[in-house]
Amino acid sequence: MKDSPIGVFDSGIGGLTVVKEIIATLPDENLIYLGDTARVPYGNRDREVIAKFALELTRFLLGKKVKALVVACNTISATCLSEIEKLSPVPVIGVIKPTVTKAVEMTRTGKIGVIGTRATINSQVYEREIHAKNGELQVIQQACPLFVPLAEEGFVDHPAAKLIAQEYLSRFKNSGIDTLILGCTHYPLLKELIRSVLDDGIKLVDSAEPTAEELKKVLEVGDLIKTSLEAKRVFCVTDAPERVLQTANIFFENKFPGKLEKVSLEVG
Amino acid sequence: MKDSPIGVFDSGIGGLTVVKEIIATLPDENLIYLGDTARVPYGNRDREVIAKFALELTRFLLGKKVKALVVACNTISATCLSEIEKLSPVPVIGVIKPTVTKAVEMTRTGKIGVIGTRATINSQVYEREIHAKNGELQVIQQACPLFVPLAEEGFVDHPAAKLIAQEYLSRFKNSGIDTLILGCTHYPLLKELIRSVLDDGIKLVDSAEPTAEELKKVLEVGDLIKTSLEAKRVFCVTDAPERVLQTANIFFENKFPGKLEKVSLEVG
Repeated sequence: MKDSPIGVFDSGIGGLTVVKEIIATLPDENLIYLGDTARVPYGNRDREVIAKFALELTRFLLGKKVKALVVACNTISATCLSEIEKLSPVPVIGVIKPTVTKAVEMTRTGKIGVIGTRATINSQVYEREIHAKNGELQVIQQACPLFVPLAEEGFVDHPAAKLIAQEYLSRFKNSGIDTLILGCTHYPLLKELIRSVLDDGIKLVDSAEPTAEELKKVLEVGDLIKTSLEAKRVFCVTDAPERVLQTANIFFENKFPGKLEKVSLEVG
Repeated sequence: MKDSPIGVFDSGIGGLTVVKEIIATLPDENLIYLGDTARVPYGNRDREVIAKFALELTRFLLGKKVKALVVACNTISATCLSEIEKLSPVPVIGVIKPTVTKAVEMTRTGKIGVIGTRATINSQVYEREIHAKNGELQVIQQACPLFVPLAEEGFVDHPAAKLIAQEYLSRFKNSGIDTLILGCTHYPLLKELIRSVLDDGIKLVDSAEPTAEELKKVLEVGDLIKTSLEAKRVFCVTDAPERVLQTANIFFENKFPGKLEKVSLEVG
């Protein structure tokens, strides 16, 4: 069981930002990644459709005998984590709780901003989780539906992206937030852009590092840490491996740690 | 058979621009529309995945006993029309041939521009079809992957959209084209934007009117024109009918001619 891979999945390849941090935190672990690039993006879809797609991804990875499942996607974690947990006999780690824990620790003003896809923001899950930790904290949320296409098309440095970021993030101007949760695994690609239009001194929190830390904790508690060396890492996508690799390389400064394999989800 | 509906389908709701023109051209016809909003957009996906999805849509509409099929999507028409034709016992009308016929008639300089999704442009189908009509014509193509998300998010009047359009369309500056094919059914929403950054005097050709005219011709030739009055129109989507209706209303100046019904494609 210790040598079994960790399963990580996402609607597309944004989850690779989480994988990168998992590799840094747990360098010897075997890993299998699954990105549903044939049906990405999920962020504008209804909860019901997102859940249907997410359970298909879950079944695929459970079929690969993973020892833990990381839902490296805010949209899926926000809308249907409990369905995934119900289906999975192995521990499931979503991105939202670890990210909230970190943000709540960091804020001094008691005001936290959250940005994400439409589905994530509409789910209100960040607000609920933040208030579950501390009911006095104030939460300001904003959906940013164009951020993912801008990131995927490599427009993050483009003046157009700056105008769009200014519009989306205008509600945080003089709002008193000191912490902004990047509630989408693509958004780390936009960090500089986001910083450039926010008030000074606002700290950005993304899901990658807190989720990797949470995974490590879960594996330690379950006595599931791999002890042998030489990690095997497999990266699967449901469509367009060549084009996806170009974007994947942006996440890894052109050193993508593996090959992308196209797989079919035919799960009956 | 004459009273059977015309089936129209698209990866999402861009095909409604074609529906609008069909209603204007053939106001008494029964019609069933199917938009795959659960898996939209198709424009960045591989041919194989687009074909798989498109054949599922085809089967759904054939199950509704349509008398003709309109593929109101450039991406699908560009990548897998022949597979759809093979499957369908009723006439299939794609958007590309009618649009090319019109553009070839219109050009005086002999230089035609084409814009579309990545899949449409990569397929080279516009260039092939234009050259099949006249091998001397020059074709300049450009993929514009951010145009669909900008249109769907209502950013068409935004300064950011103008910057992106300037970048995508810069290759048409002083290129000598006098005709530009809008090779995506969403792009009519961007007509003003596109005009504002092109050289003066370039004519825009979209798929809606030539496709509706071609459909009319095919129905006439097959003696399939409906003779009774009172058209019944059904609009189906695979996800998010409420949000989709908002965008659909943009296409119809807030007078969307029907309701959106959510359907499942479970086609076995």
